[in-house]
Amino acid sequence: MKLVMGNKNYSSWSLRPWLAMSHAGIAFEEEPVRLFTPEFAPHVAKYSKARHVPILVDGELKIWDSLAICEYLAEKFPEKNLWPKDAAKRAEARSVAAEMHSGFSPLRVNLPMNIRASLPTTRWTHVVQRDIDRVIEIWTGLRERHAADGPFLFGEFSIADAFYAPVVTRFHTYQVKLPALAQAYADHIRSLPAMQKWIAGANTERDFLVSQEPYRHVPDFADPIMVTGGH
Amino acid sequence: MKLVMGNKNYSSWSLRPWLAMSHAGIAFEEEPVRLFTPEFAPHVAKYSKARHVPILVDGELKIWDSLAICEYLAEKFPEKNLWPKDAAKRAEARSVAAEMHSGFSPLRVNLPMNIRASLPTTRWTHVVQRDIDRVIEIWTGLRERHAADGPFLFGEFSIADAFYAPVVTRFHTYQVKLPALAQAYADHIRSLPAMQKWIAGANTERDFLVSQEPYRHVPDFADPIMVTGGH
Ligand SMILES: N[C@@H](CCC(=O)N[C@@H](CS)C(=O)NCC(=O)O)C(=O)O
Ligand SMILES: N[C@@H](CCC(=O)N[C@@H](CS)C(=O)NCC(=O)O)C(=O)O
Repeated sequence: MKLVMGNKNYSSWSLRPWLAMSHAGIAFEEEPVRLFTPEFAPHVAKYSKARHVPILVDGELKIWDSLAICEYLAEKFPEKNLWPKDAAKRAEARSVAAEMHSGFSPLRVNLPMNIRASLPTTRWTHVVQRDIDRVIEIWTGLRERHAADGPFLFGEFSIADAFYAPVVTRFHTYQVKLPALAQAYADHIRSLPAMQKWIAGANTERDFLVSQEPYRHVPDFADPIMVTGGH
Repeated sequence: MKLVMGNKNYSSWSLRPWLAMSHAGIAFEEEPVRLFTPEFAPHVAKYSKARHVPILVDGELKIWDSLAICEYLAEKFPEKNLWPKDAAKRAEARSVAAEMHSGFSPLRVNLPMNIRASLPTTRWTHVVQRDIDRVIEIWTGLRERHAADGPFLFGEFSIADAFYAPVVTRFHTYQVKLPALAQAYADHIRSLPAMQKWIAGANTERDFLVSQEPYRHVPDFADPIMVTGGH
């Protein structure tokens, strides 16, 4: 299997299946493609008409959405328990993951994933704050209920954690203040070996995606490559 | 089981699991709640902190996202084959459904579901056109490949059809011109007894949701109730 994926610094959708596979110890190759560069569209078009990454390529099969990829992995590797084993917990984990998949666009647009950067700010609107509050509500509620079962949202690691991992990095980048339980959860996710590996990869990248940098126009890292494509 | 759901005229997210259940012959009760009215938030808060409909209530369990609900139904009623039986087709069907679940926001915002209305227009931007083209590409490609297996996207009915049913109604409301194969698919979906039942329900509703009416401020039906809440 190979995962066609965007820049580690910016591609929140790519991080989700990447983390699910890496944390669970599922073998795959990475095929990086640089977001918003001229090479992006022709490269992605080899696999999918949807024009987005991530794409999981498994032989002839191409799966072109992060959640569909995770469902495929959960079916293909049942022994990895990517969803909780209990049916009620699984339904709840899917609700939590799907809520992120289709929602939180104020949070995603205004506090885009930008792992390498430190951009402390409190200049966001009330719709962004509402999203932040909702994330805290989800994390806190689940951690309270599942504290005895392990350090993840549903005790053991699940796809739900993979779906919130980009938010963990956003809260770090923009230094969003969190209550203790939510902060402890975020710290735990950041400390995972797989997350540390992704973060290390992001730190070696040089692309500066202008469309993803709402808080600055000047890169603070060496030898940036300015990329002006994208929305 | 009961489905807490929004107005049939406007609530595209509610239509998806409603159609999956109704078409498949899964028994459930409807619990309607009027979108953007003062009664909405307190009603929904009884079941979910996510503040959205649809919500499936099955005993103690509450599932608060359309896709998570459909996955739950697919697991609970395996004999209904809500996803294609073949693993590769299933992965593709999930990609198609998930692409709709997290994408197409220009289409959703600019051509909102409005079943009762006929609002012919071609006044949309190129990002909306790009979404329309992508829907046509998905429908046409799948109908070409599965023509011999039945009239739905993957031959037999699946959750993928439920996810595109709101778009079928939008293309009808705004009279979006479609190539023959896509139009035939849309006509087939509209003709389903379950869809006809939903449409009939929408036609009896009187709420006029100002936030969902980008093309008019005057209702064209009798005894409207003006609802000014919402984004
Ligand atoms: N629904 C998709 C969304 C994927 C997506 O939007 N990916 C972004 C990168 S993180 C992308 O490919 N953008 C390229 C573009 O819009 O040109 C998923 O869940 O995988
Ligand atoms: N991710 C959710 C989205 C649900 C959603 O946005 N529902 C709309 C109605 S169609 C809603 O409840 N809006 C109420 C509000 O935003 O106040 C799903 O797939 O079910």
